[in-house]
Amino acid sequence: MRDPDYTLTAGPTAATPRTLQALGQPIIFDYDPLFLEKFRDLERKVGELMRSSDDIVLMQGEAVLGLEAAARALTRPGMKALNLVSGVYASWFGDWLREYGAELVEVRVPYDEAVDPESVRQALADNPDVELVAVVQSETPSGVHNPVAEIASAAKDAGALLLVDAVSALGCEEVLVDEWGIDVCVVGPQKCLAGPPGMSLMSVSEAAWEAMRNNPNAPRGSFLSLLDWKDGWVDTDRTKFLYTPSVVDVNGVDSVVDQVLEEGLENCIARHQAAARAARAGVKAMGLELWPRREEYAAGCVTAVRVPDGVSRAATLQHIRERYGVMLSGGYGELADKLFRLGHMGPASNSLNPLVAVSALGRGLADLGVDVHIGAGAEATLEVIAEVADRAVTAA
Amino acid sequence: MRDPDYTLTAGPTAATPRTLQALGQPIIFDYDPLFLEKFRDLERKVGELMRSSDDIVLMQGEAVLGLEAAARALTRPGMKALNLVSGVYASWFGDWLREYGAELVEVRVPYDEAVDPESVRQALADNPDVELVAVVQSETPSGVHNPVAEIASAAKDAGALLLVDAVSALGCEEVLVDEWGIDVCVVGPQKCLAGPPGMSLMSVSEAAWEAMRNNPNAPRGSFLSLLDWKDGWVDTDRTKFLYTPSVVDVNGVDSVVDQVLEEGLENCIARHQAAARAARAGVKAMGLELWPRREEYAAGCVTAVRVPDGVSRAATLQHIRERYGVMLSGGYGELADKLFRLGHMGPASNSLNPLVAVSALGRGLADLGVDVHIGAGAEATLEVIAEVADRAVTAA
Amino acid sequence: MRDPDYTLTAGPTAATPRTLQALGQPIIFDYDPLFLEKFRDLERKVGELMRSSDDIVLMQGEAVLGLEAAARALTRPGMKALNLVSGVYASWFGDWLREYGAELVEVRVPYDEAVDPESVRQALADNPDVELVAVVQSETPSGVHNPVAEIASAAKDAGALLLVDAVSALGCEEVLVDEWGIDVCVVGPQKCLAGPPGMSLMSVSEAAWEAMRNNPNAPRGSFLSLLDWKDGWVDTDRTKFLYTPSVVDVNGVDSVVDQVLEEGLENCIARHQAAARAARAGVKAMGLELWPRREEYAAGCVTAVRVPDGVSRAATLQHIRERYGVMLSGGYGELADKLFRLGHMGPASNSLNPLVAVSALGRGLADLGVDVHIGAGAEATLEVIAEVADRAVTAA
Amino acid sequence: MRDPDYTLTAGPTAATPRTLQALGQPIIFDYDPLFLEKFRDLERKVGELMRSSDDIVLMQGEAVLGLEAAARALTRPGMKALNLVSGVYASWFGDWLREYGAELVEVRVPYDEAVDPESVRQALADNPDVELVAVVQSETPSGVHNPVAEIASAAKDAGALLLVDAVSALGCEEVLVDEWGIDVCVVGPQKCLAGPPGMSLMSVSEAAWEAMRNNPNAPRGSFLSLLDWKDGWVDTDRTKFLYTPSVVDVNGVDSVVDQVLEEGLENCIARHQAAARAARAGVKAMGLELWPRREEYAAGCVTAVRVPDGVSRAATLQHIRERYGVMLSGGYGELADKLFRLGHMGPASNSLNPLVAVSALGRGLADLGVDVHIGAGAEATLEVIAEVADRAVTAA
Repeated sequence: MRDPDYTLTAGPTAATPRTLQALGQPIIFDYDPLFLEKFRDLERKVGELMRSSDDIVLMQGEAVLGLEAAARALTRPGMKALNLVSGVYASWFGDWLREYGAELVEVRVPYDEAVDPESVRQALADNPDVELVAVVQSETPSGVHNPVAEIASAAKDAGALLLVDAVSALGCEEVLVDEWGIDVCVVGPQKCLAGPPGMSLMSVSEAAWEAMRNNPNAPRGSFLSLLDWKDGWVDTDRTKFLYTPSVVDVNGVDSVVDQVLEEGLENCIARHQAAARAARAGVKAMGLELWPRREEYAAGCVTAVRVPDGVSRAATLQHIRERYGVMLSGGYGELADKLFRLGHMGPASNSLNPLVAVSALGRGLADLGVDVHIGAGAEATLEVIAEVADRAVTAA
Repeated sequence: MRDPDYTLTAGPTAATPRTLQALGQPIIFDYDPLFLEKFRDLERKVGELMRSSDDIVLMQGEAVLGLEAAARALTRPGMKALNLVSGVYASWFGDWLREYGAELVEVRVPYDEAVDPESVRQALADNPDVELVAVVQSETPSGVHNPVAEIASAAKDAGALLLVDAVSALGCEEVLVDEWGIDVCVVGPQKCLAGPPGMSLMSVSEAAWEAMRNNPNAPRGSFLSLLDWKDGWVDTDRTKFLYTPSVVDVNGVDSVVDQVLEEGLENCIARHQAAARAARAGVKAMGLELWPRREEYAAGCVTAVRVPDGVSRAATLQHIRERYGVMLSGGYGELADKLFRLGHMGPASNSLNPLVAVSALGRGLADLGVDVHIGAGAEATLEVIAEVADRAVTAA
Repeated sequence: MRDPDYTLTAGPTAATPRTLQALGQPIIFDYDPLFLEKFRDLERKVGELMRSSDDIVLMQGEAVLGLEAAARALTRPGMKALNLVSGVYASWFGDWLREYGAELVEVRVPYDEAVDPESVRQALADNPDVELVAVVQSETPSGVHNPVAEIASAAKDAGALLLVDAVSALGCEEVLVDEWGIDVCVVGPQKCLAGPPGMSLMSVSEAAWEAMRNNPNAPRGSFLSLLDWKDGWVDTDRTKFLYTPSVVDVNGVDSVVDQVLEEGLENCIARHQAAARAARAGVKAMGLELWPRREEYAAGCVTAVRVPDGVSRAATLQHIRERYGVMLSGGYGELADKLFRLGHMGPASNSLNPLVAVSALGRGLADLGVDVHIGAGAEATLEVIAEVADRAVTAA
Repeated sequence: MRDPDYTLTAGPTAATPRTLQALGQPIIFDYDPLFLEKFRDLERKVGELMRSSDDIVLMQGEAVLGLEAAARALTRPGMKALNLVSGVYASWFGDWLREYGAELVEVRVPYDEAVDPESVRQALADNPDVELVAVVQSETPSGVHNPVAEIASAAKDAGALLLVDAVSALGCEEVLVDEWGIDVCVVGPQKCLAGPPGMSLMSVSEAAWEAMRNNPNAPRGSFLSLLDWKDGWVDTDRTKFLYTPSVVDVNGVDSVVDQVLEEGLENCIARHQAAARAARAGVKAMGLELWPRREEYAAGCVTAVRVPDGVSRAATLQHIRERYGVMLSGGYGELADKLFRLGHMGPASNSLNPLVAVSALGRGLADLGVDVHIGAGAEATLEVIAEVADRAVTAA
């Protein structure tokens, strides 16, 4: 099979040429003065992107490492935790909290809906002893976005710590660590930043460190330990790594962070939102159905589309990949076969790429006998792209 | 400060242009059919390099992840384990065994000596209930190599499982998993393979899986879990990743493994041994002292040199880096200030690179007032390089 | 201005990632044994692509160098030459023939038509002393293809030498040097091969060498000299370059030639023809007018579209580049403002790229007030792409 | 045969990683607004490097193209020209002047000596009607440097135009176009700039343009025409290329020019001179003989070494390349077998690279039975390197 021409997926996603060159630069020693400086500088820049003045920790494994590390470090047996579940990842996160001994309270909604902040306030009122609130800002598996600003406000009012899985949110939505009071925020570089997977970008508040220090079960002397990073790196002179950092991934992440900072985070977010809007317009005009019940909480990173009745998700994606060289995503976890996902992360949100995603899906489904209005879909997608471009030029 | 001209370190080490290009190739989706195929193919090739017919697991974090994962999975509270300590890494590994509840037996030698297989046999005779023997084949921090073939034989005779930290051994020494009966073998791609850090290349025997399954403490549902890989990947159809693999690191490791297979593992080992021999000859001729007491157990990956009295390791390395653009390594852990290390991993073992390492160290020390015979060192280094080249040509 | 997202032009055109990596490989000495071997090997492979058993010459400057070199070497003052003119490049070539002293006979057609082989036979019958026939196989400036097989037959029957400018033809059309009896064939690497500009790939027959040797005006001791290559390189042991070859361009051209050979030249041609057919379908469905009067002689490398009345070519292209990040071409030479050109060279012919070209043009024109059926264009383009993909899969 | 580990040659020479990445960046259309801007910007920066306020022309072929173009454009049949010959290239340049019809006056010295400015003054006094003086500043084939400042002064006093072949001089010596009054200066990017071959970087004065315009033989409508560039590019709005520029080479040259400007041209020159001095010290200490009679005119770009009696240049270089992976150069033209050349261009002048060049030559010769003091050579080379580094640090 040929290499894909287009990777328009839920991440890892296609990178820019500049990112690829950063990944291909010479490997240097992790204790080379230049690498040490780059690593520290990257921490600073990640904080800037997260709008965070808290400590930044760059764990050296993909985001699930950071999430597990945070769950383990924060969960004291017997403590009460509120988990907000609107999708697959949140559900899995709850499994960890339970396994590590938390008494779990859940707010659950169907996976095509967002969490209602009012229900969070209610749950916290019903459970005033909740010490930790966990929420996934952008459920990549289903393309649904949760209103974290309002949820954060509820959590803060209740005096609980707030953990936000912003893995695919940073870059396509606001993630305001300081302003919202996020205690632990976890971001993945392979989503809207369009970098390599292999790192967890984390922000940790003083209150969160305090809770970890008070937790006898918080890992220490482990690849999973946040406290090791705090004691051995952050609170020393940042000259001794706990273990060999992933030099190449650091090079790549450093580059994508630079690129977003140069573009401006606001512009980056606007670009993703515009692409997602164009894709949604195209999907609807083709006569297909979006997965999220309401567009107001449709995610900016991927557009989830319901698989039409009688259609095989796997066969469709394979067909599109083989015939058109376009790689799209299916669902994930329990939603695997229920939806298609068109990714608009990083370069996938540029130019006419949303048209490619929409048209590949439409044409693929048409090939398989589904009644799809391909031309209308293309026209609607381009309409949004044109309108956004026009506004950008007019504003400039 | 300028980029280093030479990275001749204890790893991460300089990569070949081909490796850099592999790292800079387009990022594709982990579920792209081509990536799935590459991942499975890499497992097969890693097994070939390890001379192993056991299951191969590619954990997605640098080698310390694989070592911790193995230690956790194999250590049942109360079981007896024999740890062989000739260096920093073995000592740290013992800390894990103890922390996870093992009753620890140790054979210890000074860090400039190798473990004597006879002492291992004796320890096993004294402790017939030892269930696990752990050894570091090549102690990168001190450039000392242990005789794993003989140690393995003793462990097998005693019916114990054998865990080998071959992180920096593969590529510069024989690592014969099947023949020696290694149950868990852990290799790092950033050492003699000269690839990116960020992965643990592991081989796991049936007996080791059995022991893990019988261990209630073996991690499951965790980034640290080997059993998750066994159940969710190895024993299924290898189509569902446990979490997002480090696509870029996989690309890099795939390339370096190909390069070694194309060169021939035997040739690769010979290349490293020759470079190390040349460096040792140069170091001695300059009038400096090797760290290992006897050359027979000096490692093939790095040449460790005692820091002369009154000399600062850190100041010397900084001087050499700043003035000559050559990055060398110091010691590590408790040996940090006691030795210099000249790396001969990957491309650092090619051509006249050992001369550059030896001469940079010699000239740097001379600048700082140490009496060093620079010319003699260069001459001796080149003598070995020439002799090896001559033999290679004659043989061909 | 941001980097272009899409380069869908008349060449230089976007390259594959593999080509870019070949261009970025280490620069080596031109007399390094590996480079000498690569250069000779490339000559052999270029011959294979041209279906030529004649001498291959790789002149180290873009195709215009090879064309001028051939014109100078073949034109004796007073000789009669027949120049076939259906476009800008042929017209310019005639200027050279005249300048170097040829008595020029021309067959001319409007630039939106192809040369009729019958008119060539007639001209040769009228001028039996014509010694040289020159034709442009694929007029990139206007997207018109000439029937070289039939023209070659006429030239051969008349006993004339045949010079073919196949700069943009190789890769998207048959170019059969041996079978057709082309005496001098000139190809550009930056067109359908999607390589770097900077070289002229040439095939020269024995009869052509003979004519050059008999021409006192044929350049010698010059950057423009084909005879220097013949005497100093081809007819010696090919170990002494006339001057420093363009190492980097050679690396790039070597890679693109490999890529086409691996794909199969027939498949490469089919790919380009399919893309051009899809683009033409889209352009017509949008309500725009193709430049070539008849599709049967529309080129495979670019699709030329008439600029609608009242529309500025330059402003439209700038609009599309600025707003959509898509770089298309305008006309060239005297046709500069009369047409748009959508390039389908190299990767631009893959996947849904013709849709991007068609849609960018359509949407751009719509923005500027032209009445364009964007949806219909997209649908028609995709229809052809789908049909071709279906046939490919069915055939496989 | 394996890829070379070291390319320490007379050019093309090894490039920096940054240059390689520039070469591997996406190919874009030559009429893309960004490329047009880059091309014009490169002209400006080349002028800065040449210390020239004259017109800059970037001819799209390696330096021999620029030299031939200049010779053709400036030589009127019957005019008198003074050619200064201290090496192979100057001799070849004289052949052109003669061929194009000049009445040639020569000052000749043996190829291991430099031209004496007094002899130039004398020749000009003897031939007051000389209209053009031509000199090679740095004869790469023999590693000899000519005193162009003084020669220029003589030429200016005589009212003659001055053409300087500074192909390998720029970057390792002062080239002061404005100050010295150079009328045509030609530089090659593949020498001390360590870029790709494939371009001629030229500066042309008003007086030189005037002379060309008055020369009926000056090429027009040709790949060899400087006047085409003047009329079609420089004197218009620089928006229409004469033919397709070598996009990839432009990318590479743009990068190396940036790198030198960032380093500072003075620092770049000092770096090359230091490396050459270190190599000369090493060569002499080994007991070998430098080619230039006096070190004061030894070139900064390459160090030429006499081939010892009874030794084969070709066999020695092949031996060194095969056994040690080091590519050095031999002589060139009629000097081909008389000397070895150690290149210190670009990165080859960094760090311990001169040691590698010296030691590879010494060890290779020793292998072949020549009596060479390898250790002394290494020591002497390093002595100079250390002294230079010390002075640099002290100065900073």
